[in-house]
Amino acid sequence: MGTEANRGLLERSGLLTENLEAVRPDDLVVAIRGQSAEAAVAALARVDELLRRSGSSGEGKYVPKSLETASKLLPSADWVCISVPGRYASGVARQALCLGKHVFLFSDHVTLHEEAELKREAERRGLLLLGPECGTAIVGGVGFGFANRVKQGPVGLVSASGTGLQQVSCLVSRRSGVSHALGTGGRDLADEVGGVASVQGLDLLRRDTETRAIVLISKPPSVTVARRLLEEARRAGKPVVVLFLGYAAPARRAGNLFFASALEDAAGLAIELATDEEPGLTGTAAFRVNPSGIGDLPFARGQRYLRGLYSGGTLAYEAQLLLRSHGLAVSTNALASSDSGGPSAGHDAGPCHRVLDVGAEEFTQGRPHPMISNDMRIRLLLCEARDPEVAVILLDVVLGDGAHPDPARELATAGSQAIAEAQQAGRRLEVIAVVVGTDNDPQGLESQAKQLEAAGIRVFLGNEAAVEHAASLARALDESSPLGPPVPVPLTALEPPAAALNVGLEWFTVGLQAQGVPTLHVDWRPPAGGDDRLGGILKRMEGHGV
Amino acid sequence: MGTEANRGLLERSGLLTENLEAVRPDDLVVAIRGQSAEAAVAALARVDELLRRSGSSGEGKYVPKSLETASKLLPSADWVCISVPGRYASGVARQALCLGKHVFLFSDHVTLHEEAELKREAERRGLLLLGPECGTAIVGGVGFGFANRVKQGPVGLVSASGTGLQQVSCLVSRRSGVSHALGTGGRDLADEVGGVASVQGLDLLRRDTETRAIVLISKPPSVTVARRLLEEARRAGKPVVVLFLGYAAPARRAGNLFFASALEDAAGLAIELATDEEPGLTGTAAFRVNPSGIGDLPFARGQRYLRGLYSGGTLAYEAQLLLRSHGLAVSTNALASSDSGGPSAGHDAGPCHRVLDVGAEEFTQGRPHPMISNDMRIRLLLCEARDPEVAVILLDVVLGDGAHPDPARELATAGSQAIAEAQQAGRRLEVIAVVVGTDNDPQGLESQAKQLEAAGIRVFLGNEAAVEHAASLARALDESSPLGPPVPVPLTALEPPAAALNVGLEWFTVGLQAQGVPTLHVDWRPPAGGDDRLGGILKRMEGHGV
Repeated sequence: MGTEANRGLLERSGLLTENLEAVRPDDLVVAIRGQSAEAAVAALARVDELLRRSGSSGEGKYVPKSLETASKLLPSADWVCISVPGRYASGVARQALCLGKHVFLFSDHVTLHEEAELKREAERRGLLLLGPECGTAIVGGVGFGFANRVKQGPVGLVSASGTGLQQVSCLVSRRSGVSHALGTGGRDLADEVGGVASVQGLDLLRRDTETRAIVLISKPPSVTVARRLLEEARRAGKPVVVLFLGYAAPARRAGNLFFASALEDAAGLAIELATDEEPGLTGTAAFRVNPSGIGDLPFARGQRYLRGLYSGGTLAYEAQLLLRSHGLAVSTNALASSDSGGPSAGHDAGPCHRVLDVGAEEFTQGRPHPMISNDMRIRLLLCEARDPEVAVILLDVVLGDGAHPDPARELATAGSQAIAEAQQAGRRLEVIAVVVGTDNDPQGLESQAKQLEAAGIRVFLGNEAAVEHAASLARALDESSPLGPPVPVPLTALEPPAAALNVGLEWFTVGLQAQGVPTLHVDWRPPAGGDDRLGGILKRMEGHGV
Repeated sequence: MGTEANRGLLERSGLLTENLEAVRPDDLVVAIRGQSAEAAVAALARVDELLRRSGSSGEGKYVPKSLETASKLLPSADWVCISVPGRYASGVARQALCLGKHVFLFSDHVTLHEEAELKREAERRGLLLLGPECGTAIVGGVGFGFANRVKQGPVGLVSASGTGLQQVSCLVSRRSGVSHALGTGGRDLADEVGGVASVQGLDLLRRDTETRAIVLISKPPSVTVARRLLEEARRAGKPVVVLFLGYAAPARRAGNLFFASALEDAAGLAIELATDEEPGLTGTAAFRVNPSGIGDLPFARGQRYLRGLYSGGTLAYEAQLLLRSHGLAVSTNALASSDSGGPSAGHDAGPCHRVLDVGAEEFTQGRPHPMISNDMRIRLLLCEARDPEVAVILLDVVLGDGAHPDPARELATAGSQAIAEAQQAGRRLEVIAVVVGTDNDPQGLESQAKQLEAAGIRVFLGNEAAVEHAASLARALDESSPLGPPVPVPLTALEPPAAALNVGLEWFTVGLQAQGVPTLHVDWRPPAGGDDRLGGILKRMEGHGV
């Protein structure tokens, strides 16, 4: 796209030829540099061919230009998948609902008001509208948007978070399987929307006989919506694992509700509940990959900071929560919209660890999402690695349909370059990756993990385990901690009192004596018989040595 | 005490004789009504005798009037127990520290500034200062203040909450035992105080070889202090169960830290960790008493509200948190000072359930604490029971040294009266009690529980279980819930899509087709080729049927 930024890039690459000077941000720009004129011409011909083909996917077949026509051509279509630009998306979605179709709304930049209207319309019609701001769903085994190829099974998911849904469904798939995974949209639990899609999802999974346990995931929802969802979850008549990240769960269990503390924890609980296992403390152990035995060089003096470079917003959000729970000061752009600035959210002051959601708007303006293109993260990775204060870099690598076809190759190359550069500068750089995917994903979990490990990157399958490893390193490096141990109290303080003095209520004397502690009661009287004025005078006299 | 309120009480009882008209709030008033003049005179003589005795506990022995003298008389005394009025307490405590003694500070109304100064002074000297605003501790098996007679064992407690410490130590005592239980003071975790006593406590229990697992309890601490405490807890080298009530625990486990969600949960975890059991999901099951099979009459129409009448502040605070987690709207005076008004705190609007901390200042001005006297709670209990909208009343009954010698007798009488009155009015009243105590407590857990049960009161040993039972009743009665189930989406929505239409990114068409879903790509173009002005005109023309 002929944006300002991309034209700058073309210019620095010497590709901004005169005929490109006038391009507008909406124009598609194709600039080619070839080893020979023939090669360049051939490349251009190939581009033309691809562009022609993309205009008519049917290759000769008639391609409908409107939803109505398409619907008449394929009347059995019960779903419409929408990914047109945000400002057109709500119009198309409304049309789809009028035609009686369920909607998977991939588009971003749909306004909150439009989302609320659309979802109410869908609810009235008994239709599902999944999304926006959460581009993933698995319905009856079919993936929409960014979805992983998971095993079918007894765990149903309703998630307002895309990467949250991907992480949990992939982990569930390792030891059990997924019935349906409904991505309801990142703002479904905002007050304006009222959790319409999530309530519909819970209601569907309640009635679905394949689903034996339900997982409900969100960044902190509005209080009113949380209450409505919990009410709905209680009706389910089957176990519901609730993960409201960053929300104080007031109990581990309340009836059929099980409050999870992290995505891995939610997955572990769900597997156990779906299989009637007695749920253990953490179901996470099985999700850990043994960190490969890379020689543990010591870090250099001055190395102390951790940098998280995430493509998944919820994974970034969870990472900063977990790091804070380890007592680490973290700055982040991964904030839930409903964050109240409570104890577990927001920026810590001063130099500190940093977790970036590289999929956030400030990084993706005019650029592809980091799940599709690794360029931005590679640039950030190499830049952070050169910072002599940085010791640990934490990445996620999200696989599945829709994601980059081979992210590990590019990230492994960049990672091993970063590690080597640091080593040449006398530093140790620890790169940690959490890989979200399954063996059936097009990229293949196993082969992606192996590429990363071969580059010296430590691989985890769960974000919690990855962050815990990163945190343990960061804590060890945290020289800036002003918290020395306290002046020790002698251990004798814990022995039964040898004897005691009691000033005040006499029954304490009686109580201590009854417990065998020799106790002397002090017949204390307020100074000057409780007369404050006189007491003050006496005190001043004392102070003057009178 | 001759307070305004008490004088009103005397007047209404016809006991405010002329010579009492002039009493001041600081005066002790003794008014006697006898069946005969002889009886009244005898009673008065007995009062005189008791008053004389209380002035000289040694009965003939010399009673020191100052801490210095007492300290010389009993030089082996390593602890000083202080319960003088708040404004004098810090002076006495400072004296005790100067004499090199540990301090158990029972007094209330010590200012936050004084507390911070005293604790820093104690820290410098390597001394403990336990309290204020948390009148309980067990050191080397010896109880200070309101303490329960627990079994000795491997679980050590550090708690800023008095009733929190009592609840957890009693539950731990049922299946294991307590090494030490240090009540550090309700405001120890405020920023000004900085958690000094809690850090000292953690450090002591870390070094104490008897202690195999530690429990750390507080209402929500300041963020800075929470960080310091978690840092200290990590150093412990043994499991630490952390319960910051109402604080979002970001993980169930982080290294040696285990985040509990409620007091019962903390006790269960600690027992399991101290005995090397694999911690289960909830350790609470063993703490439940089977609700006695009282005939379950239906509630009357209009009965819907729950009233909690607590003597323990932390138990009240926990109750409202748990009720909210069940989606119930609750008003309460049991707020942590650091509450930010986040999702789990504060008042809900409109008529709703109510949880009162009857030990809060507004109820105890000029009156004894509800753990010592049941009068205020009995008055509230009978009053609430007469409210035709009230269905459930929830009480705590805290046993142990310092508490009322037989609370169950008085509360059972009032409870059975309340239940009978309601029954006569055609209503069912459910009274639920959580009894905090041990069989070795002077009141005896078993006999207290039996008295309550005989009066038709349901008894639980843990607050969480009691509240869960109350919540299940309240939820069933909650007719005011505006939340009907959603308009059902047909279950066919969860079948694999029969076919799909795709508008936007073409790769979604490819992806769906690859999964075997017949998909028709719509060659969608923005209206008027993306020209918004023209698009608007077209839309208006459409709207006018042009």
